[in-house]
Amino acid sequence: MYIHSVSHYLPTEVVGNEHFTQLNGLSNEWIIERTGIEKRRKAASGENTNTMAVEVTRRLQDKTDLSTVDLIVGATYTPYDTIVSLAHEVQHHLGIADIPVVSVSTACSSLLNAIEVAEGYFALNKATRALVIVSEHNTAYNNEQDKVSGHLWGDGAAALLITKERQSEGDLAIKGLLTGGAAHTPKATTGVMMKPMDGGVTMPHGRDVFINACQYMPKATQQILDRCGMTLADVDYVLPHQANLRISRNVMNTLGLPESKLISNIERLGNTGCAGCAIALSEQWDTFQKGQRIVITVFGGGYSYGAMLVEV
Amino acid sequence: MYIHSVSHYLPTEVVGNEHFTQLNGLSNEWIIERTGIEKRRKAASGENTNTMAVEVTRRLQDKTDLSTVDLIVGATYTPYDTIVSLAHEVQHHLGIADIPVVSVSTACSSLLNAIEVAEGYFALNKATRALVIVSEHNTAYNNEQDKVSGHLWGDGAAALLITKERQSEGDLAIKGLLTGGAAHTPKATTGVMMKPMDGGVTMPHGRDVFINACQYMPKATQQILDRCGMTLADVDYVLPHQANLRISRNVMNTLGLPESKLISNIERLGNTGCAGCAIALSEQWDTFQKGQRIVITVFGGGYSYGAMLVEV
Repeated sequence: MYIHSVSHYLPTEVVGNEHFTQLNGLSNEWIIERTGIEKRRKAASGENTNTMAVEVTRRLQDKTDLSTVDLIVGATYTPYDTIVSLAHEVQHHLGIADIPVVSVSTACSSLLNAIEVAEGYFALNKATRALVIVSEHNTAYNNEQDKVSGHLWGDGAAALLITKERQSEGDLAIKGLLTGGAAHTPKATTGVMMKPMDGGVTMPHGRDVFINACQYMPKATQQILDRCGMTLADVDYVLPHQANLRISRNVMNTLGLPESKLISNIERLGNTGCAGCAIALSEQWDTFQKGQRIVITVFGGGYSYGAMLVEV
Repeated sequence: MYIHSVSHYLPTEVVGNEHFTQLNGLSNEWIIERTGIEKRRKAASGENTNTMAVEVTRRLQDKTDLSTVDLIVGATYTPYDTIVSLAHEVQHHLGIADIPVVSVSTACSSLLNAIEVAEGYFALNKATRALVIVSEHNTAYNNEQDKVSGHLWGDGAAALLITKERQSEGDLAIKGLLTGGAAHTPKATTGVMMKPMDGGVTMPHGRDVFINACQYMPKATQQILDRCGMTLADVDYVLPHQANLRISRNVMNTLGLPESKLISNIERLGNTGCAGCAIALSEQWDTFQKGQRIVITVFGGGYSYGAMLVEV
């Protein structure tokens, strides 16, 4: 399984920390110290999860032929429409008839859940070229006034063409992929929630989310390396879920890897949910060197987690 | 792949057609003539997609051991929480650690999408015992006043234990399964929608939904039979998505099958979304005879469709 191409989209409006200082008194310094976030993007009126999904698809079409896509997997926890899901909106845009189309909703980890769903279709010989789209419209459901988590979220989207067979020299080979639910832990189902009819995004137990994110991402990273017969010495970059720069640094510290191997965009984009890692992959794509290995590891509410090892 | 066991749950409150006569003037006769629906269930205050998912899981636990479940796939388009998805809520209830947990949102067709996702995990050897849960809380997002579609919807849930290998003589063997998106059709993305932040469930193009449902379900039924080397003569029952009794009858008519082979619960339950077929399967489970074959065929907004052939 290979990542042949990736694109991303960020809304144009930039929201700096001073916006929250005015709203609820949180200072720029306090937000940066606690989260690393300096600014984030906000979708314009009329933009939503589905429009951003179509936009990243257009951008991927500029790079690669999508006319033979035979599976579309969408992912979001901030849906514009749960019936006409982002995957369906993209099928409509592409005009490709009668291929499997499914959207998943597995919090911030669902980039890897979506790729694992595609991996399953490949194993079944029901698909060979999957378009995976991650899109989050956090600001639609976020309460900016909320001092606990209102300042964390940003909007954005990314699209990846995942293929069963290698398409070109530049493809990223997916060497291993695992996902897991960690909802068995005591506060998993109340740590961070997104109830469309009851308050939107809330984070009553941010500390528990923080602790579990710091534990699960290094553990999943180690697991996927073990499965691939590799060690941390084989890893050039770690791309963790972009939730909080302190979590990312904690993950690197636990793994014993230097911060120079950390890929991060949270400073500029905030927590863009399940889109964060894919946006970062798109942003960094041209900088990767042949032979380099990157672990993408995710953690999300629910809880949910995963890790994927890719090789350039 | 086998269906080992199935359970269902229906809220206790029954809403008859007279409720809509009072609300918006639609008569009992008019609703029955147009939809076949006589009554539907409504979740109580405090009930939601996640509580119903846990309840059907409890009921399945009364029938079969779920302690070795190694995959949970949830499905809904009426989510209570998109981060703590119904699949995560169920993992929390079961207390099973570190198994893949994912929820899908693919409208009324997502029972089959969810089973196909499980089929993929089986093919990857990443799971062998999947708990699939379908749960819909339509009344949370429905506008009862809406004369077009307000009277169509009901609440309910079902759970299925799907296993890679046969567990017992009574298992239903899944002989073939296909799903597809039909979002390429002109009105697919505006026919029926569920926008949590913008009006909930609406159906601006009910006629287009009706026509496509009547076309896609027979077509998918024929396709799955072809793939399994069978014909309509081999089919004992057809269980279509429970959207409208006129659609179900139209499907049987197109297939040239008598109404005695139709499984239907829409008269009593209304459109329970992606839960409808699974509820019917649970209701009818004990009536099936060894050797009988049932085609479950679904159609949903987006559009999306699928068919599955099972053999007792």
